[in-house]
Amino acid sequence: MEFLVRVETRLPDELPEYERADLLAHEAARGRELVAAGTLRHIWRLPGRLANVAIWSAGSVEELHDALVSLPVWPYAEIEVTALAAHPLTQAVDKAV
Amino acid sequence: MEFLVRVETRLPDELPEYERADLLAHEAARGRELVAAGTLRHIWRLPGRLANVAIWSAGSVEELHDALVSLPVWPYAEIEVTALAAHPLTQAVDKAV
Amino acid sequence: MEFLVRVETRLPDELPEYERADLLAHEAARGRELVAAGTLRHIWRLPGRLANVAIWSAGSVEELHDALVSLPVWPYAEIEVTALAAHPLTQAVDKAV
Amino acid sequence: MEFLVRVETRLPDELPEYERADLLAHEAARGRELVAAGTLRHIWRLPGRLANVAIWSAGSVEELHDALVSLPVWPYAEIEVTALAAHPLTQAVDKAV
Amino acid sequence: MEFLVRVETRLPDELPEYERADLLAHEAARGRELVAAGTLRHIWRLPGRLANVAIWSAGSVEELHDALVSLPVWPYAEIEVTALAAHPLTQAVDKAV
Amino acid sequence: MEFLVRVETRLPDELPEYERADLLAHEAARGRELVAAGTLRHIWRLPGRLANVAIWSAGSVEELHDALVSLPVWPYAEIEVTALAAHPLTQAVDKAV
Amino acid sequence: MEFLVRVETRLPDELPEYERADLLAHEAARGRELVAAGTLRHIWRLPGRLANVAIWSAGSVEELHDALVSLPVWPYAEIEVTALAAHPLTQAVDKAV
Amino acid sequence: MEFLVRVETRLPDELPEYERADLLAHEAARGRELVAAGTLRHIWRLPGRLANVAIWSAGSVEELHDALVSLPVWPYAEIEVTALAAHPLTQAVDKAV
Amino acid sequence: MEFLVRVETRLPDELPEYERADLLAHEAARGRELVAAGTLRHIWRLPGRLANVAIWSAGSVEELHDALVSLPVWPYAEIEVTALAAHPLTQAVDKAV
Amino acid sequence: MEFLVRVETRLPDELPEYERADLLAHEAARGRELVAAGTLRHIWRLPGRLANVAIWSAGSVEELHDALVSLPVWPYAEIEVTALAAHPLTQAVDKAV
Repeated sequence: MEFLVRVETRLPDELPEYERADLLAHEAARGRELVAAGTLRHIWRLPGRLANVAIWSAGSVEELHDALVSLPVWPYAEIEVTALAAHPLTQAVDKAV
Repeated sequence: MEFLVRVETRLPDELPEYERADLLAHEAARGRELVAAGTLRHIWRLPGRLANVAIWSAGSVEELHDALVSLPVWPYAEIEVTALAAHPLTQAVDKAV
Repeated sequence: MEFLVRVETRLPDELPEYERADLLAHEAARGRELVAAGTLRHIWRLPGRLANVAIWSAGSVEELHDALVSLPVWPYAEIEVTALAAHPLTQAVDKAV
Repeated sequence: MEFLVRVETRLPDELPEYERADLLAHEAARGRELVAAGTLRHIWRLPGRLANVAIWSAGSVEELHDALVSLPVWPYAEIEVTALAAHPLTQAVDKAV
Repeated sequence: MEFLVRVETRLPDELPEYERADLLAHEAARGRELVAAGTLRHIWRLPGRLANVAIWSAGSVEELHDALVSLPVWPYAEIEVTALAAHPLTQAVDKAV
Repeated sequence: MEFLVRVETRLPDELPEYERADLLAHEAARGRELVAAGTLRHIWRLPGRLANVAIWSAGSVEELHDALVSLPVWPYAEIEVTALAAHPLTQAVDKAV
Repeated sequence: MEFLVRVETRLPDELPEYERADLLAHEAARGRELVAAGTLRHIWRLPGRLANVAIWSAGSVEELHDALVSLPVWPYAEIEVTALAAHPLTQAVDKAV
Repeated sequence: MEFLVRVETRLPDELPEYERADLLAHEAARGRELVAAGTLRHIWRLPGRLANVAIWSAGSVEELHDALVSLPVWPYAEIEVTALAAHPLTQAVDKAV
Repeated sequence: MEFLVRVETRLPDELPEYERADLLAHEAARGRELVAAGTLRHIWRLPGRLANVAIWSAGSVEELHDALVSLPVWPYAEIEVTALAAHPLTQAVDKAV
Repeated sequence: MEFLVRVETRLPDELPEYERADLLAHEAARGRELVAAGTLRHIWRLPGRLANVAIWSAGSVEELHDALVSLPVWPYAEIEVTALAAHPLTQAVDKAV
C-alpha cells in the first residue's frame, strides 16, 4: 500500500541552535534508513517551508503509523496521510521505466 | 522540474453516457501518451473519487500548462499544481532503486 | 484494513421522483450486499442530511475504491476516505464484546 | 445514543518527558475503563497523529460530556462530536455479525 | 435531548413562483405542527437569508432525523446539527422564568 | 434583541490549578447574575469542549458587548455573535408554552 | 442599531439581458429609497465584483431583515450581516465632522 | 481612497495589567489623532471581541500602511484591508445627509 | 496605485464552442488594450487553470473596477483584488532594471 | 521561471527590541542582494501587515528554495509559493515597456 504523506515541521522558537541541528541530523539519518527499508519511496521538498511531501509504502496502516512516529521531528510535526489506490496508467508507467 | 498535481473531474450530470465513456477513453489514451513522453511520472487514484494525484515532469511551467490543458477532461477538471524541490534524501532513494 | 468513509449524496433537482426512488432502492440493495460481504462493517446516518459515515473493510485501497464506485449513488456522491490504524484499546474492545 | 468523536491531543512542548509518559499511561487506563463500561465502542488511530476517532455510546449528551471530560488528556485535547442516527442498513449489519 | 439546528434553504432559480409560495406555505404549516408537538422549541431567522437557527427537542437522533426530513424544504435545505448538553446555569434559568 | 453567542474558552496551560478553579467559580457566579438579569436566556454546553452556545438578550449591541466583556473568562475566550430576527413561528411557540 | 452588511449578487447565466438590466434598475431605485429612509447609511463597491459592503441602520433586526428582503436582487444574493457596537472613538468622529 | 479595515488585537496572556492598560490608553489617544486627521472616518466595535471594523481614508496605500503601523497595538494586531470603490448610491447618500 | 488581481474564469458547460472561442478572442484583444493603456502591468497564467494573476495599475479603485468590468469574461469570472503598498526594496528594484 | 511568493513574518512577542531591529536590518540587506542578483524581481507590501508579495525568478525550484531559506526572517516566516506560467499577453507587456 502506498500513501501520500505531507510532513510539516514547526520547531519551537526557543529550541537551542545545537539541539535544532542535532534533531535535523537525526531526522536525515532516520530518513536514509526508511529509504533503505523501502518505506520512503519518493520525497520532495515544498519550497520555502520546512516541509516535504512523500510517497510512503507500508504493509499496513499500523506499519505506516509506526514509521511516521519513528521520525525524530514527530513531536513537532503536522502530518497528513492520504491513502492511494493504484491508477490504471501505472502499468504504462512501469513499462516506460 | 517536477510538480505534484491533483486533478479532480466533475462531469456534468446531463452528459450522455456514451459521451462520458468516450471522454474517459480519450483521457486514458492521452494519459498513456504523457507517460510515454516522460511527462507523467507517477500517478495514483484517490479512492472513491474521480480524481488522481500525480507527479508531472516538465521543462518549464509553460510546458506543464500545455500538458494539463491537453487532457480531454480539462474543461471539467479542477487542477491544483504544487512546485516541488528535490529533497536531500532523493539521492538515497536513487541509490536504493 | 479499515477506513472511515463519509458519503454525502446530492441528487440533482431535476431527477424525476420515480428515478430518485429507484436509485435509492438500488442503493439500499447494494448496501445489503456490501454488509453481507463484510465490506461495510458499521454505518450511521448524519441527521438531517442525505449522508452517512461508515467503517469499510477492504483487502486493499483498490478494493475499497471498487466497492465505493459500485454504489448506485456514486455519480452524485461526495466521498471522503480516511485510512485508520488499529488502536491499542481495540484489544480491550474485543474482549469486552 | 452513539456519537462519532474525534480527539486530537497536542501536548505542550515544555511538558517533561516523565509527565508525558505518566499522562499517556493514565489515558490508556481510563480508556480501558470506558471500554469496559461500554461507553467506548470502537476506536481507531489516525496514522501519523496523536489522534483517534471513536464511536462513543452514552445515555445522554450530558453523560457523553462527562466521559470526555474524564479523559486525562482533556486539557490538551481538541474534541469534535457528531451525533449519529441509526442507518437502515444497521439491521443488516447486526444479522451479519 | 436538545439540538442546535441551522437550516438554510436554497430554492432553485427555475422554481415557478406559485410552487415557491406553495412550498413555503407548507413549510410554515409543518413548522406549526412541530411547535405544537414540542419538537421545535425555539426558532429565529438569520437576517437577510432564507435560513433559521432553532432548538429542536427529540427523544433520539433518529426522531430528530425524521422530523428534519419531514420539512417540505428538505430537498433544498442544507442542515447542520449540533448536539447540546445541559449547562449548569440552566437550573438558574429555569428558576428565573 | 436576541443574539446567538458561542463562547469558547482556552485557558493557558500555565494557569495554576487554583487560579483556574477560582476563575471558573467567578464565571459561574457572573453567569447566575446574567440569568437573573434576563440577559442570558438559554444556555447549553458543547459536549467535550470548554464552550457553550447561548441566547443572549440585550437592549442594544453596546449592552451585549458590556455583558460579554463582564465575563471573568473574557480574556481567554473566543466569542462569536450572530444577530437574530424573530421568526414567524415564534408566535406559535409562545402559545405552545 | 447599525449593521455591516455584505451583499454579493450572482445572476444566473441564463437570465436574459433585458431582465438583467431591468433587475439592476429596480435595485438602484430601491437603493435610493433606502438611502432616503435613512436605512442605508454608507455603501461601497467591492472592486471587480457585483458586490457591495454597506452600513445599514434599523430599529430592530426584524426591520433590517425586511429591508434586505425588499431588495430586488435578494433571490440571487448572498448576504452576510454583522451586528456593530458603537466604538468609544465615535464621539471623536462626530465632533470631527 | 477609502478602505474597510478590520483590526483584531490579541494581547499576550503574560502582559502585565498596567502595561495592558497603558497600551490601550495610547491606542485610544492615537485613534483620536487619526480621527482628527480625517484618516479614521467611521469605526465600530465587533461585540464580544477586542476588535473593530472601520473606514479609513488615505491618499495612497502607503499612507494607509503608515497609519496602521502607527497604532500602538500593531505588534499584537491581525489587520485585514479591503479596498473600496465608490458606489453609485453614494451620491444619494450625500444628498440625504 | 497597484493591485494584485486574481481572475479565474468558469465558462458554463453549455456555452457553444464558437461562442467560447469568440469570447476568449475578445478577452485577448481587451487585454492588449489594457496593456497598451498601462493598466495591466504584469500578467501570469496559473498553470492548469483558466486563471491568471496580474498587477494592475489605476488612478483610483473606481478606475480599477471599471477596467475589470470591461473584461469580456467578467460575467463568468471570480475576481479577487488586493491593494498593494510600495515596498522599500522597490527603489533597489528600479535601480537594478 | 517565475514564482509568486507571499512571505508573512510573525516575530515572537518576547524578541528583544534590538534583536528585532537587527533582524529586520539584515532582512533588508539580504533583500537588496537578491534584487541585485535578479532573483527578486518585483515586491510589494501588504498594507497593515508584516508581509509582502513578490515575484521571484530562479533557474529551478531548488534555487528558489535556497533563496527563500537565506532570508534572515525565514525561521519566523510563513511562505507560500505559486508557480507561474508566461501569459500570452506578456509579449504585449514587453513591447509596451
